[in-house]
Amino acid sequence: MKSKKVAIIGASGYSGEVLVQLLLNHPHAELVDITSRQNAGQTLAQVFPKFASHPKSKALRFSEPNAELLAKQADVVFLALPHGVAAEYAVPLLNAGCVVIDLSADFRLKSVDVYKDFYAHDHPAPDLLKKSVYGLPEIYRDEIKKSLLIASPGCYPTSILLPTIPLLKAGLVKPTGIIADSLSGVSGAGRKAEVDYLFCECNESVRPYGVPKHRHLSEIEEQLSLAAGTKVMIQFTPHLIPVNRGILTTLYLELVKSTDAEKISACYKKVYGSEPFVRLLEGKALPDTKNVVGTNVCEIAWRLDPRTGRLIVMSAEDNLVKGASGQAVQSMNLVCGFPETAGLI
Amino acid sequence: MKSKKVAIIGASGYSGEVLVQLLLNHPHAELVDITSRQNAGQTLAQVFPKFASHPKSKALRFSEPNAELLAKQADVVFLALPHGVAAEYAVPLLNAGCVVIDLSADFRLKSVDVYKDFYAHDHPAPDLLKKSVYGLPEIYRDEIKKSLLIASPGCYPTSILLPTIPLLKAGLVKPTGIIADSLSGVSGAGRKAEVDYLFCECNESVRPYGVPKHRHLSEIEEQLSLAAGTKVMIQFTPHLIPVNRGILTTLYLELVKSTDAEKISACYKKVYGSEPFVRLLEGKALPDTKNVVGTNVCEIAWRLDPRTGRLIVMSAEDNLVKGASGQAVQSMNLVCGFPETAGLI
Amino acid sequence: MKSKKVAIIGASGYSGEVLVQLLLNHPHAELVDITSRQNAGQTLAQVFPKFASHPKSKALRFSEPNAELLAKQADVVFLALPHGVAAEYAVPLLNAGCVVIDLSADFRLKSVDVYKDFYAHDHPAPDLLKKSVYGLPEIYRDEIKKSLLIASPGCYPTSILLPTIPLLKAGLVKPTGIIADSLSGVSGAGRKAEVDYLFCECNESVRPYGVPKHRHLSEIEEQLSLAAGTKVMIQFTPHLIPVNRGILTTLYLELVKSTDAEKISACYKKVYGSEPFVRLLEGKALPDTKNVVGTNVCEIAWRLDPRTGRLIVMSAEDNLVKGASGQAVQSMNLVCGFPETAGLI
Amino acid sequence: MKSKKVAIIGASGYSGEVLVQLLLNHPHAELVDITSRQNAGQTLAQVFPKFASHPKSKALRFSEPNAELLAKQADVVFLALPHGVAAEYAVPLLNAGCVVIDLSADFRLKSVDVYKDFYAHDHPAPDLLKKSVYGLPEIYRDEIKKSLLIASPGCYPTSILLPTIPLLKAGLVKPTGIIADSLSGVSGAGRKAEVDYLFCECNESVRPYGVPKHRHLSEIEEQLSLAAGTKVMIQFTPHLIPVNRGILTTLYLELVKSTDAEKISACYKKVYGSEPFVRLLEGKALPDTKNVVGTNVCEIAWRLDPRTGRLIVMSAEDNLVKGASGQAVQSMNLVCGFPETAGLI
Repeated sequence: MKSKKVAIIGASGYSGEVLVQLLLNHPHAELVDITSRQNAGQTLAQVFPKFASHPKSKALRFSEPNAELLAKQADVVFLALPHGVAAEYAVPLLNAGCVVIDLSADFRLKSVDVYKDFYAHDHPAPDLLKKSVYGLPEIYRDEIKKSLLIASPGCYPTSILLPTIPLLKAGLVKPTGIIADSLSGVSGAGRKAEVDYLFCECNESVRPYGVPKHRHLSEIEEQLSLAAGTKVMIQFTPHLIPVNRGILTTLYLELVKSTDAEKISACYKKVYGSEPFVRLLEGKALPDTKNVVGTNVCEIAWRLDPRTGRLIVMSAEDNLVKGASGQAVQSMNLVCGFPETAGLI
Repeated sequence: MKSKKVAIIGASGYSGEVLVQLLLNHPHAELVDITSRQNAGQTLAQVFPKFASHPKSKALRFSEPNAELLAKQADVVFLALPHGVAAEYAVPLLNAGCVVIDLSADFRLKSVDVYKDFYAHDHPAPDLLKKSVYGLPEIYRDEIKKSLLIASPGCYPTSILLPTIPLLKAGLVKPTGIIADSLSGVSGAGRKAEVDYLFCECNESVRPYGVPKHRHLSEIEEQLSLAAGTKVMIQFTPHLIPVNRGILTTLYLELVKSTDAEKISACYKKVYGSEPFVRLLEGKALPDTKNVVGTNVCEIAWRLDPRTGRLIVMSAEDNLVKGASGQAVQSMNLVCGFPETAGLI
Repeated sequence: MKSKKVAIIGASGYSGEVLVQLLLNHPHAELVDITSRQNAGQTLAQVFPKFASHPKSKALRFSEPNAELLAKQADVVFLALPHGVAAEYAVPLLNAGCVVIDLSADFRLKSVDVYKDFYAHDHPAPDLLKKSVYGLPEIYRDEIKKSLLIASPGCYPTSILLPTIPLLKAGLVKPTGIIADSLSGVSGAGRKAEVDYLFCECNESVRPYGVPKHRHLSEIEEQLSLAAGTKVMIQFTPHLIPVNRGILTTLYLELVKSTDAEKISACYKKVYGSEPFVRLLEGKALPDTKNVVGTNVCEIAWRLDPRTGRLIVMSAEDNLVKGASGQAVQSMNLVCGFPETAGLI
Repeated sequence: MKSKKVAIIGASGYSGEVLVQLLLNHPHAELVDITSRQNAGQTLAQVFPKFASHPKSKALRFSEPNAELLAKQADVVFLALPHGVAAEYAVPLLNAGCVVIDLSADFRLKSVDVYKDFYAHDHPAPDLLKKSVYGLPEIYRDEIKKSLLIASPGCYPTSILLPTIPLLKAGLVKPTGIIADSLSGVSGAGRKAEVDYLFCECNESVRPYGVPKHRHLSEIEEQLSLAAGTKVMIQFTPHLIPVNRGILTTLYLELVKSTDAEKISACYKKVYGSEPFVRLLEGKALPDTKNVVGTNVCEIAWRLDPRTGRLIVMSAEDNLVKGASGQAVQSMNLVCGFPETAGLI
């Protein structure tokens, strides 16, 4: 299988770090360039000492991001940038024929109006929204294979969409009244020097934030609406918990009358029974972030409450792997024709 | 003010430890005896080295629990025992004229049927259920003052009842569709040697448990039903998070049509505006367990979601203080005629 | 007992927070002013929500630091400032007759040369070095009582000096070859927004730093030299560990020939046997930071290694209490004629 | 390259878990059997849910350990058992022609007297001590290649021996006065239900233990003595810190007179410059466990203190990888003729 040359723009954050790790060890990808405005000139090992002993890391040094240069070197370029600046790089890279896999929220929405509502400014490249594919392989596998611009989903959205979309598509749960209560590790806040994310502010602390209108709601609701065939509006409460990595989401869903346990079980098995990165838990097992951290797996378990008639679905994922960089690599595997699990197991 | 002599049966667990700490420093209580089956014979300092430098700790040594002896020594006896064994001590202590403050679930329910449904055996002293008062001072202050048997609420129930009862009583939220999503520190599991609660099993881990029918549901629903004047059934999902102490609860409530933000605000201010141990957060502030750990305070904040029309109420407390031992001392203060905040600020 | 009015300059860091907590609850002190450049104008509760329910906190608002104004309001002023700026406030406050208790390193050294060597600039007020007393009450109790300028010791120094000084004074250990290996919680780094102290950079991490010449060495060696009556130079290695609070120090000492276990035991008992804030551990017990965090106690245990003939002494303290703010309050108690343990037990 | 069939006896602890992970992903090993007395009958995924999605895990189920059966199935057998029971399995496995790699301390010592002194009973199979090789590949690479019984080193010993042996062999440091101060994550205590290792007992806690005569001293001193050519006795203090994985060791060494920084640097470069699993840090970098956890690398940095003339050497490793299972796999690679880094990068 022919290898592809890949580059990462913005590789010095936590998602960038995991992306580097996955690509250094990928059997069919050759990491040719990593960029970082603030670390330009430093070696990979200076910024991330843990990579220093990796045989392939010696040659890697952070450069200033330059779309033209990167386009000449790489077949696939990952953008691991803060929201709002991806378009600047995506346009020239796409024009130069690169595959672009963006980990920001910039190309995840189809609607420019929703974008403006949630991000408070006009979208900088509205044409690209039509070309981009939402990079959730379990749902958009075929589209991803054919796309040149992949908008890799956010960490919270992945933990909510994977458990919910099959049930909505099958008409087993109501599209109304959905509640998602999510708990995220601190790496989700990024690697930025802010007092709120200091060790002593997060350790021995648990707190909700961004209540009630978190930005990720926009892509969650757009995708759920597509699955349900009707406009879906959900309740979403993120919480910060003192772990480095991991998201645990608990979903409260209302059943359509004819739904029973058997139908839910059958639905999940049909949709995810053969998926390498979705683990349906059985018996008494419930999701636990420690069982997915470091892997590209999303664990899912559910319980029908006979008292309330409600369906509770719980999911766990690594916010930096299945919720970010691992999923992006999964999309790269699809678009490049590699085995979908290459470099991810 | 005349001091009272107090004793603790079962003082070697985490709640017992906090109870000892509060009572050693209480201005009107004299801790005369502590018992523990497994630590009988050891000094307080041997079991809890942190108390060794406390001037009042020198004389304290764990004894075998013996209700008759304790009844002679103490005016008030706290029971910090596992569920199911409190009756054995409560009966003789009450007969001997002691005030009994029980931290277990044994006397919290009014209905023997509900008890049997949730605890899977008959209640060992059903007569006492009629005499006991549910020890939530903000709700049952007057009853506590006159009671000899106080059933101190559980940690999860406190974090759910304090924010919800005023709204239900005022008819501002519907008694249906209530969801409580709770996150608890590991001390909630007690000080018992089980693999599930080892450091390496809890650290860097987040997990739900006891879904969907946790035992605490019984007292939560009984109390909510009393507040609403109708049978209330809620959805409750506890999660284990890697902190020592603290519970964060996020509640999802449906509004009665006429309810608006002003009414919610007015209701909370009226009920809790002067409460020393309920803190209504203002402005952008949201609850954070680190702001309540080590105190007897329950923080409450709420948001009306204009998109969904739902009310989200969030609370934070120290599961071992307001959720257990601090609240028990608050009840002692009431029943003994001490200032309610004595030893708690 | 007549209360004293106290103020804190620089009250928005971690030491300041603990100082506020101790003074709010002190039976003989009235906290009349708190200052903070960056939080001026905000209430105490806005910066530290956990104090919001304290009855005495309502009136407290951070002001711009102004020595003249403070001198009119307060009898005792604590300086909880970064190193290097204390002199600016100490001079006018002392001139106005206030007692000044400085938590920085600015007045801890007697030698201006050593100061310059370790801090790389001339001391801004060399005259004050002669007037200041090193605020380690167990060693300088009498001097503290008579001083107007108290230089409260650093956290690492306290954990090293308390176990070592008695042995050096008694001539039981050699003044050469002393090694101190210390482990500190992250609050020791202060409440500043730096990537190195983010949760994800400290959690699941242990690392040495400042090897081999940490600034605290200067005051440690000056004090040890005074105790030994000869110049002492030690080896000191600090490490950062993922806890909020606590310092654990392991000391390696070489015995003078005639020293045996009995003499060491007798020495410690004589010096610390009646000290309220030094706990000599007995039997198999070893220090553990969890037993001292939140208290003003320093735990000490020692072992004579029959194989190597070396003495290992271990100490544990709360870096923010006995290592900073608690010790400063202990000095205030002494200088004001309050009971030494007032507000600290 | 021909694959080898491998089995693990005692695979349900923390070392066993990492061993399973490494062998499932090893390019030349086929994991054919895993045993566990207490989990016999359960699938791998039931005991370790995180392996459930691994394609090779489906067939694996814990069996009762049975040396005869295992000898028929496997070419290489890892023993990940508590100390004292390895001999029972090693003898029949070796007789049947298997390679045995033991992770316990049972075959690490050459002297039966030292064994008895430290383990308080006679060695159960003294003949095997002569045949076994101490499995530290960087030191005993050639011997490991030819051995059938490899005694894989302990976690503390590895972190001490790797930095110290080259200096002793080269005669750059004195064989006397060596001090090793080590900090270990809680997984080092194993996966056993004891109150001391509960989350709430370890979190927000740091403590020394096993002072002054830890069992690991025996193998450390035996190996150091071999390197120095004279009997070496060291001071060793282990501490427990609240991380899951990782050991940080700080060593205090006395220099031989002629030694200077250049010679130390040259010595380390010569011995470890080409080692894939030893990382010599340069510039200002110091070891940090977070940079080695999950890898088979041991980081080493050193500082010459011009003030004291002492050499401080610091090392960091993952106690479960380089300190246990990774190192054992490294030995397997050597003895089986695989590339030494196979399955470890």
